[in-house]
Amino acid sequence: MADLFRVGLLGHGTVGAAFATLLEDRADAVEAITGLRPELSGVLTRSRGDFEDIVERSDLIVEVMGGLDPARDYVLRAMAAGRHVVTANKQLLSTHGEELWAAAREHDVQLRFEAAVAGVVPVIRVLQESLAGAHVDRLHGIVNGTTNFILTQMAETGASYADALAEAQRLGYAEADPSDDVNGRDAAAKMAILARLAFNTPVHIDQVRYEGIEHLTADDMAYARDLGLGLKLIGTAERIDGGLSVRVHPAFLYGAHPLASVSGPFNAVTIESEAITEVTLSGPGAGGPQTASAVLGDVISAMIPPASTPPATDSLEIVTDVESGFYLHLEVADRPGVLAQIAQLLGLQGASVKSVVQKGLGENARLVMVVHPLLESRFFAAVDLIAGLDFIRAKPRAIRVIDEQFT
Amino acid sequence: MADLFRVGLLGHGTVGAAFATLLEDRADAVEAITGLRPELSGVLTRSRGDFEDIVERSDLIVEVMGGLDPARDYVLRAMAAGRHVVTANKQLLSTHGEELWAAAREHDVQLRFEAAVAGVVPVIRVLQESLAGAHVDRLHGIVNGTTNFILTQMAETGASYADALAEAQRLGYAEADPSDDVNGRDAAAKMAILARLAFNTPVHIDQVRYEGIEHLTADDMAYARDLGLGLKLIGTAERIDGGLSVRVHPAFLYGAHPLASVSGPFNAVTIESEAITEVTLSGPGAGGPQTASAVLGDVISAMIPPASTPPATDSLEIVTDVESGFYLHLEVADRPGVLAQIAQLLGLQGASVKSVVQKGLGENARLVMVVHPLLESRFFAAVDLIAGLDFIRAKPRAIRVIDEQFT
Repeated sequence: MADLFRVGLLGHGTVGAAFATLLEDRADAVEAITGLRPELSGVLTRSRGDFEDIVERSDLIVEVMGGLDPARDYVLRAMAAGRHVVTANKQLLSTHGEELWAAAREHDVQLRFEAAVAGVVPVIRVLQESLAGAHVDRLHGIVNGTTNFILTQMAETGASYADALAEAQRLGYAEADPSDDVNGRDAAAKMAILARLAFNTPVHIDQVRYEGIEHLTADDMAYARDLGLGLKLIGTAERIDGGLSVRVHPAFLYGAHPLASVSGPFNAVTIESEAITEVTLSGPGAGGPQTASAVLGDVISAMIPPASTPPATDSLEIVTDVESGFYLHLEVADRPGVLAQIAQLLGLQGASVKSVVQKGLGENARLVMVVHPLLESRFFAAVDLIAGLDFIRAKPRAIRVIDEQFT
Repeated sequence: MADLFRVGLLGHGTVGAAFATLLEDRADAVEAITGLRPELSGVLTRSRGDFEDIVERSDLIVEVMGGLDPARDYVLRAMAAGRHVVTANKQLLSTHGEELWAAAREHDVQLRFEAAVAGVVPVIRVLQESLAGAHVDRLHGIVNGTTNFILTQMAETGASYADALAEAQRLGYAEADPSDDVNGRDAAAKMAILARLAFNTPVHIDQVRYEGIEHLTADDMAYARDLGLGLKLIGTAERIDGGLSVRVHPAFLYGAHPLASVSGPFNAVTIESEAITEVTLSGPGAGGPQTASAVLGDVISAMIPPASTPPATDSLEIVTDVESGFYLHLEVADRPGVLAQIAQLLGLQGASVKSVVQKGLGENARLVMVVHPLLESRFFAAVDLIAGLDFIRAKPRAIRVIDEQFT
């Protein structure tokens, strides 16, 4: 039996409960990758569990209780006891980050916090590791899913701010008290953390200027739509005249901006640097399971040696025949019965035609057809037969179609 | 003086030369972050340098020579000698990956290869670490910048494949012999590596089906444009009926697909999993400086302990007043002279009006203005004065505009 890796959990709200479930669900996979079996060694909530006891019985502590107190004290004590810590607490890091990072270095433990910013979007790791050597010039982010959902609703439905907020609350994208989301303070905390990592300069949340979305109107959205602009709550951190500006405010973005098309509760971050031009990361920014996945990624990273590629744990069979939709371009002589014969050959292989466009006439007509997904081997069998028909004037050309139902 | 971290370089082509330059340019920054001063300890090219001697004098070996032989032998020997290796060699990893990863584990050294796939887009690290615990269902990628540049050219200018290829060659986005790019083999090698990491299953390049873009025509592009589709060279790795399909082929994508808007020489990868829904990473996929940045990120990662946040190396001043463009929404009584008074107050603060739209008439007219970037303090001073004018009917509303010149 594999050795255990004991994980102590502080906090059992939405993220904590999702993490406990995920850790159990993925225990086999984690064991296959790391050689260690992860196990929840204890859970601390307001009403149960003993902190000292949990630390004693853990190799790593996950802190998802939120807030400054007692989270700061617990994280410091866990690290002093030699435990790695994974936290999702942006408030804590944007307020006491320097103290906590110094403590991690002093006690030679890992302090990971991917889930604190943009959920499962791996921006922390990318700034700390991939881009550690880059000279970052600017970073733009949509780092609050609640406000991005509200703004997307307003843009797509013409709803007022109040109605869009109510809808967000109904769907669970906004809290009963959404103040820190809609006034920009949540995004400001996240931008303080990102700016610290991107620019290697201490940034406290109180140094981030922020403005929320409460004053935006359906009129503003209509203006944006008429001009092909996006209207988003944007966090910015950038070098200015040898200094650093960190701020959060609504902004109109030109349609081609990588953040203009980020919609719903998604988050995204664009990092600009002369050497790398521009890297953009996007994905779900919140939600229990997504944030729990980010926490689990950090836990696994603490379990494996750096940059190791574990032995393959699976040996999936490589499948060579798959289903695809197709675009089929045919050059044909325009005679009666042409389409019927083609449709018949396709139909014999189970291909169902979704749409047909005919261009040109006479000896140089072109047929462009789209067929619904079917096994590629069957589609190509039909195309081979079609290619042999006497009215075909050129080699048929087929291109796959990735359908919108793919997601 | 800081201890040295000695980097031996195998290969001095586009990427190798860019890396040597970058390592020197960023040596101070890397020393500040890691506490070690990186130094090039030797360079091996076809005509100069001795492999054994370079390994002897290095802590880490960067392999950017490409090809299978002698790259495989060199990488194995470097690891056997206890040296970490950073490689950008997709051909090597998609052919001999299992052997190399096993050797890295056996000799307890790091084998990093972020630059082998999608340049500076950090997809390797994200799959190996952030998403190590996720059950990935599907991965789509645009992983060849040459073909994406050619397809973008065809889509935007209506050029033929041959003309777009010639343009790509002229601009340095395509090699004199572009075969492995345009026939899909380069993308297939990268997809083999991504599939190995995403699905923990050994995948050899020979198991990847691939098809190139040589047969695509301006007609196909016109069809895509008419229907609002993207036409891209797409790599796919996905679970199918308990097996795994890995393939590369051109595909039409619906406009809302995260990969449909990836243009020019950029690369992007979308990773889908039930727990995380979907994460997309995008950025420059090739180019000497960009690939060299990815190599440097790997080198720095090998220099620092995992998940450490080094002490802040800079102390940039936090700037609070920055330049922004603005949208200004005013409700005014529609009298003669209103616009002139507003424009005068803006002008006194140096604000230059880019456009004005007036909606409605009489007592409820609305003015929407966009002003060119100026210091925010000066803009808001003007707005405060405007708010006091007797024909203003509601509190002015201002929203920042991020201009398209921002990139």
